[in-house]
Amino acid sequence: MKAAITTTPIGGSPFQSRRRPLVIKKFGGTSVANIERIRRIARLALEAQRAGNDVVVVVSAMGGETDRLLKLAYQLLPVPDSREMDVLAATGEQVTVALTALAIQAEGGKAASFLGHQLPVITDSSFTRARIQCVEQGPIREALAGGQIAVVAGFQGVDPKNNITTLGRGGSDTTAVAVAATLGADICEIYTDVEGVFTADPRVCPSGLKLKSIPYEEMLELASLGAKVLQVRSVEIAMKYDVPIHVRSSFTEEEGTRIVSRDKMLESRRLMGLACERNQVRVELIGAECRPGLVAELTDFMAELNVSVDMLCHSRGALENPRADISFTLPEGELRRAQPELEHFMGRLGASSMQVSSDLAKVSLVGIGLRSDPGIAARLCRSLTEQGIHVSGLSVNELRISCLVEGDAADQAVCILHETFELAGETRVEPLASLSPA
Amino acid sequence: MKAAITTTPIGGSPFQSRRRPLVIKKFGGTSVANIERIRRIARLALEAQRAGNDVVVVVSAMGGETDRLLKLAYQLLPVPDSREMDVLAATGEQVTVALTALAIQAEGGKAASFLGHQLPVITDSSFTRARIQCVEQGPIREALAGGQIAVVAGFQGVDPKNNITTLGRGGSDTTAVAVAATLGADICEIYTDVEGVFTADPRVCPSGLKLKSIPYEEMLELASLGAKVLQVRSVEIAMKYDVPIHVRSSFTEEEGTRIVSRDKMLESRRLMGLACERNQVRVELIGAECRPGLVAELTDFMAELNVSVDMLCHSRGALENPRADISFTLPEGELRRAQPELEHFMGRLGASSMQVSSDLAKVSLVGIGLRSDPGIAARLCRSLTEQGIHVSGLSVNELRISCLVEGDAADQAVCILHETFELAGETRVEPLASLSPA
Repeated sequence: MKAAITTTPIGGSPFQSRRRPLVIKKFGGTSVANIERIRRIARLALEAQRAGNDVVVVVSAMGGETDRLLKLAYQLLPVPDSREMDVLAATGEQVTVALTALAIQAEGGKAASFLGHQLPVITDSSFTRARIQCVEQGPIREALAGGQIAVVAGFQGVDPKNNITTLGRGGSDTTAVAVAATLGADICEIYTDVEGVFTADPRVCPSGLKLKSIPYEEMLELASLGAKVLQVRSVEIAMKYDVPIHVRSSFTEEEGTRIVSRDKMLESRRLMGLACERNQVRVELIGAECRPGLVAELTDFMAELNVSVDMLCHSRGALENPRADISFTLPEGELRRAQPELEHFMGRLGASSMQVSSDLAKVSLVGIGLRSDPGIAARLCRSLTEQGIHVSGLSVNELRISCLVEGDAADQAVCILHETFELAGETRVEPLASLSPA
Repeated sequence: MKAAITTTPIGGSPFQSRRRPLVIKKFGGTSVANIERIRRIARLALEAQRAGNDVVVVVSAMGGETDRLLKLAYQLLPVPDSREMDVLAATGEQVTVALTALAIQAEGGKAASFLGHQLPVITDSSFTRARIQCVEQGPIREALAGGQIAVVAGFQGVDPKNNITTLGRGGSDTTAVAVAATLGADICEIYTDVEGVFTADPRVCPSGLKLKSIPYEEMLELASLGAKVLQVRSVEIAMKYDVPIHVRSSFTEEEGTRIVSRDKMLESRRLMGLACERNQVRVELIGAECRPGLVAELTDFMAELNVSVDMLCHSRGALENPRADISFTLPEGELRRAQPELEHFMGRLGASSMQVSSDLAKVSLVGIGLRSDPGIAARLCRSLTEQGIHVSGLSVNELRISCLVEGDAADQAVCILHETFELAGETRVEPLASLSPA
């Protein structure tokens, strides 16, 4: 039954009846870390093709390769030019596509590799974190029509002036989903070194449960909260174009987790899981001038530095002494980058001092209807407090509730909340058949 | 005086007076083998720029990198698809251009890298040994006009369908010369791990002398005879477009060897030097049918296999038994590749057997007027024979005389001939000024 999902034709709309189903398979760095593993993914791709699918493989650089290359550059400059960094980094995937195409040929199949500039994958010009604007499908269609497996370099593209660009960490996920969206693929399979999306990281919370499926929206929340299964941007594109994603292990044949639109969910769950972002800091600007638009001034300023702040809190002093305190959280790395400008900005706000509390963690519960049921936030705070964990911040929206705790209490908090909200249970499995597009 | 050649403006025609002189600097694998060496070439490039030149740097892959990559492919397939091999191999130079551009920036300069497909360098579609058809100069001109040093990836190009191609071993030389020809550069400096072109390999013959200059034609002969200083194709292009080349060491500031048109020679020499090709084999096809066009049949057939034969000898039997024997030499590696087809072909010629003599060497004297003076060939044979070296083949043309000897006598033969023809002497140095374009 499992095998049927990946290797038998998917789909079945009368309009598609004469077209072969199309499967995109994306393999990350650990799945292509050496020649043996590349052989293995070649066989996976060929199996899928022999079962009647058209197959596109998207690959990342061999594990550790991108870091090795970037380290060379950092030996030259502390802040290397980002255009050249992308030229450098893009070689990682170029090596893997060639080897993967060769591996498929070695197994008796037909394959051709495609680099970002060969399709092309057009992006904007934000080197090292470019965003895909469009993917040209002609070359892939032609390869598929010729019975080839198309092997596409993840992570890379070209801007309109033909400069090499890369998409940032996890960018190959985004390439895979963008290719899937462009070609109208039946499924985009993301092979990774975890087995799927869990209610909580099983290394932290042993009762963490693999989800059979999760809606795009909740996955977006989890991804942006540090569940490093998928690049956030890839989920955004999948949601926009309704591309079904299957996150699964490279090392087993097990079903992983399907990321789908809400109406295609396999199980009905309200709470999806817990995410944990470590290395958070809270910054407090104390005694700023109490003027209108203070918060907007701050967020504008931080946006210019390309820093996202969260859990912002603005408190006014007493009437007789109208000074404002503003606090917010951000990742420690971002603060290091922004601190000099921030201290300068503090002066513009007239703030008297800046306090930084570091080594905090943001633990988040992701689900639906979390704001409309205030009982959930209350239960969350109570259960942590009862176990002696201090909650120093809370933010609530419809799809998630986040609380700020001390870094060394983060794991415990995840486990407490996993139990409190019975995340290992609360799942009703529906027949897999409900997955096939109606 | 030395420094003046590389770093002060070259040229001086009144038509060029408002243009900055243009220097192309090509660095091979050993010159970019690690970050320290890359820093060094960055400084060399900047020195030349600060002295008033426009500078284009052409780089190879880091030493050993191409072999490392190709070895990965050979783990997958004994004869990997050549299109994918080029995708793989081209990453080597891509890494180096990025690092070199960064190194120039780290030294305070401005630089931008250009890959084969970005200029583009258009080649034919003969993967792994493509020939450059043209180089687009726009992007380099634009970079130079902006005060940047243009860093161009050697060895790689794209065919008209945008497939990645590579130019074969030593292809970066050809890239450098093609770029120099396209841009009308004043000089193309080839930095290498030898100090220049020698009358004989100094490791074999300690009295081997570095030539101050050598005409294109003689350099072509030397290069094609295994003096691995430059790719043959690069010399062909330089000759066609009259690009002055300066072959010099990456590790010293010494003048190397100028490769120039005959009228710009620094010294007047008739004999340029000795080259030695090892690992030659002689194949004899015995008792073939004695029919017209036999030799053409053979050479056509070998050309189809892309094998160059040399020292071909066709002997007819007696009138009453008109069978033909044909012998020829070729590199051992080529024979290994061609042997199965050759044995099959032997049947078509009706030959009764094929004999292979291996471990031979071809020692060649390169100079001018060698055919018109039969005394030279005679002196060559006599001097070798007197020292007990058997000459089993001889071919003579205007620019070279080659003789076939046993492999283990090759070094001795080189030394004998170096002395016989007094190659360490016979040089009259003219002032360097004669080099500058009139």
